[in-house]
Amino acid sequence: MENNRRDFLKKMGIGAAAASIPLMGLGNDRDSAVNGVLPPASGLQITGTFLDEISHDIPHQNWGEKEWDQDFRHMKAIGINSVFLIRSGYRKFITYPSEYLMKKGCYKPSVDLLDMYLRLSDKHGMKFYFGLYDSGHYWDTGDMSSEIEDNKFVIDEVWEKYGQHHKSFQGWYLSGEISRATKGAIDSFRAMGKQCKDVSGGLPTFISPWIDGKKAVMASSGKLSKADSVSVEQHEKEWGEIFDGIKGAVDACAFQDGQIDYNELDAFFEVNKKLADKNGIECWTNAESFDRDMPIKFLPIKFDKLRMKLEAAKRANYDKAITFEFSHFMSPQSAYPQAGHLYNRYKDYFGL
Amino acid sequence: MENNRRDFLKKMGIGAAAASIPLMGLGNDRDSAVNGVLPPASGLQITGTFLDEISHDIPHQNWGEKEWDQDFRHMKAIGINSVFLIRSGYRKFITYPSEYLMKKGCYKPSVDLLDMYLRLSDKHGMKFYFGLYDSGHYWDTGDMSSEIEDNKFVIDEVWEKYGQHHKSFQGWYLSGEISRATKGAIDSFRAMGKQCKDVSGGLPTFISPWIDGKKAVMASSGKLSKADSVSVEQHEKEWGEIFDGIKGAVDACAFQDGQIDYNELDAFFEVNKKLADKNGIECWTNAESFDRDMPIKFLPIKFDKLRMKLEAAKRANYDKAITFEFSHFMSPQSAYPQAGHLYNRYKDYFGL
Amino acid sequence: MENNRRDFLKKMGIGAAAASIPLMGLGNDRDSAVNGVLPPASGLQITGTFLDEISHDIPHQNWGEKEWDQDFRHMKAIGINSVFLIRSGYRKFITYPSEYLMKKGCYKPSVDLLDMYLRLSDKHGMKFYFGLYDSGHYWDTGDMSSEIEDNKFVIDEVWEKYGQHHKSFQGWYLSGEISRATKGAIDSFRAMGKQCKDVSGGLPTFISPWIDGKKAVMASSGKLSKADSVSVEQHEKEWGEIFDGIKGAVDACAFQDGQIDYNELDAFFEVNKKLADKNGIECWTNAESFDRDMPIKFLPIKFDKLRMKLEAAKRANYDKAITFEFSHFMSPQSAYPQAGHLYNRYKDYFGL
Repeated sequence: MENNRRDFLKKMGIGAAAASIPLMGLGNDRDSAVNGVLPPASGLQITGTFLDEISHDIPHQNWGEKEWDQDFRHMKAIGINSVFLIRSGYRKFITYPSEYLMKKGCYKPSVDLLDMYLRLSDKHGMKFYFGLYDSGHYWDTGDMSSEIEDNKFVIDEVWEKYGQHHKSFQGWYLSGEISRATKGAIDSFRAMGKQCKDVSGGLPTFISPWIDGKKAVMASSGKLSKADSVSVEQHEKEWGEIFDGIKGAVDACAFQDGQIDYNELDAFFEVNKKLADKNGIECWTNAESFDRDMPIKFLPIKFDKLRMKLEAAKRANYDKAITFEFSHFMSPQSAYPQAGHLYNRYKDYFGL
Repeated sequence: MENNRRDFLKKMGIGAAAASIPLMGLGNDRDSAVNGVLPPASGLQITGTFLDEISHDIPHQNWGEKEWDQDFRHMKAIGINSVFLIRSGYRKFITYPSEYLMKKGCYKPSVDLLDMYLRLSDKHGMKFYFGLYDSGHYWDTGDMSSEIEDNKFVIDEVWEKYGQHHKSFQGWYLSGEISRATKGAIDSFRAMGKQCKDVSGGLPTFISPWIDGKKAVMASSGKLSKADSVSVEQHEKEWGEIFDGIKGAVDACAFQDGQIDYNELDAFFEVNKKLADKNGIECWTNAESFDRDMPIKFLPIKFDKLRMKLEAAKRANYDKAITFEFSHFMSPQSAYPQAGHLYNRYKDYFGL
Repeated sequence: MENNRRDFLKKMGIGAAAASIPLMGLGNDRDSAVNGVLPPASGLQITGTFLDEISHDIPHQNWGEKEWDQDFRHMKAIGINSVFLIRSGYRKFITYPSEYLMKKGCYKPSVDLLDMYLRLSDKHGMKFYFGLYDSGHYWDTGDMSSEIEDNKFVIDEVWEKYGQHHKSFQGWYLSGEISRATKGAIDSFRAMGKQCKDVSGGLPTFISPWIDGKKAVMASSGKLSKADSVSVEQHEKEWGEIFDGIKGAVDACAFQDGQIDYNELDAFFEVNKKLADKNGIECWTNAESFDRDMPIKFLPIKFDKLRMKLEAAKRANYDKAITFEFSHFMSPQSAYPQAGHLYNRYKDYFGL
């Protein structure tokens, strides 16, 4: 054993004294006085973020328009050009005073966030994607069919009242967060995607499902992982069927990247890209900027974890990287100061 | 279906292009450049807050007197005129060096918080209510009778040493957080309330129980809601008996407003007000400023949720609104920056 | 009962009006305008802290070298002279680009934290202790024997590449966080401790185990305490055997102080000191600066809790106090602002 160890060290060439710590073969040509062995930026840069004002599980920041205006500026500064409303409503809470949804029992909001986001997107040259309404039925029942009915009205209402009046209104986010076993998902995505495109002269649509990996557990759960995660093969088979069913109605798919382990990224990403290409769907990554491995659910992710995921997306030739989401987890003005430091590390890495 | 949808939109009058987004019939006469469709302030304004330095479940901020002094200033600036010590001790931790409780095994505190709060209340013209000692027995056993014994000494001790020397000492908070099924609660509240009033020349007393609603789950639980919540009818029956038993010894009741759903507020508040009026008890609302719907237990509440609860209290003609609590969840200097933004949203809404 | 109460109050001498609140016999000669009855500093001052950049369960702050440089300054300002890398790697995440561990599948880090910490330690005159690699096998299996193999390589690699080139490299931390029932712990600590000392010319080693007390529950658990905690007697018996087995290879033992209740501190500390003295091991306390009693796992501890633990360590004649850890829980620049206030309270108490 001792020999084995000494041999290893000799092979590494570290028997001789090294007076300083060099870059250890990382091929780094952008060494920075601040960050030691910072590797060259080989990740896909994030160009879009969700806006999470109607939240499942992320506490609200209580920002006013002043803070949102500033946040759009922070986004632009690191190359973000698209914002995606995560959902226009969740159960009874809604982002804009929808006559339709308020008649159904939703609460009247004090601020018309949709109007505000569109005005800010116009002002800052952002592309805005509208996220559909989420009644919560799907989360309760596992059946997505119920989401079609309300969104029939919401899509028309929003296009008439907001979409056609704002140049920044550039697409639709089909907000159902499905995974492989979601009942009715193909029909729902096809119906809703088609209606979005029909009403808006063909504006693009996208989805952001999750991979049923080992970290696919509820936020309210005490656990961080589960045993019965999906295999790459099973994932490929099931998503092959889903992509085949939704092509034409869905233009891009941004799988959430946080439910699988870091050493599984390449295997899943390769399959995702292959399936997307085969079905003419753009392959985006939803690079989660929060940490799924910690007991506090959720705080900003460690930079290296985000970097590894963006590098895997680049290796897999993904078309675009977006994040969930900038304002809590990457913004210099986030209530979580770790987010501001993540912003700085991200800027260091990409030389921004 | 298509017709149905088109009809609906026509009825809403949004077939015609709307060049800008007006206030959508919200009757808003205080439109602000900052907040879009901010509605007119129709909520009950908060005029009191708990002080939570001996905590069950809210992490400490480690403030010194300088920060507390500043916080009282922040409170005053939004109209708060009363502060309520949440409890003078919890199990072995106590807020003031009580000879009685230290002999019983409680730990000597490094700061006499009671003295500090009273001096600051004198200085800032606040009414101070003293919260009784909580031995923890009730939380362990569900039986509140055990709380009477220790508080017999605490009430006298505190009145003699502090109460009679501070003009700000204006009342008592019977700190047992009961709900409907609490054993011994009526007798305990009556005994303790009577003693408080007797010793202090009749200073007022209040309680702040919880409604056994769907969100009445322990902070340490992984769950956010439960199935077996109380009905409005059962709540009315049980609290009718409790109010009847405690009237005369308890002057006000501030139900915690966070355990029921937002669409249940009116139903429960109406009953609470009716029962309170019938028994000559003031009806306050304890408007919780933390969010019970999130996995991080607990961070500041989204402003619209607080607003909805204060508006329900106003509709029900409640006598006063207080909050649990300002310093963590609404203060500009809170360790949770979301609190400072909530403070700003609250000021915007009330025009402060 | 009434007589009993009155007698008690009379005995306390508080029948007479007290115009102001004096120090209540705390013998305080350092009364401060800011903190009321602040007691004289009778606690053991913290002189060391862990560095927690590869974390089990504490979210990352995403600091760059600038922030770390500043943090070392903050540490020095309150008397900290030693820093301990909590572990050099955890499962696949590592702090330095170890050729050995990367060949085993560990991820290449973007920053060589080990190099950075050593440079900063050199600069600021800190003693640096290197924490061994933690493969995670022990956490999964309860068996620590598996940790020996990887660390055979890591110890040599680190000494050759880093240790011998930095004057600040002053010791080793055997990072296995064991308790009494850990299989293979004695053999592992003896083997690893001996290798560390052999390779480095006898630099000191230490461990930081936990006491199997009532709060010894996993961070991911919904619970805060458990029923089957160890007794002082059983603790003494078991740790007597462990200390006897590791003496000579381990120079100091810093029991974590957070798993037992505050009123158990003296009993456990007395035993720890006795066992340590008997076996020629230095007795340190690992004064946890985070709070184990709150639903948010974990935020900074309330100052009085930290104070009580440091005072107990002083009473037990402990040799040294260290903390887990400064940068999240006590630093003025922590993402948790409660930490900065804890820093101020700590400085007030020790007159720093």
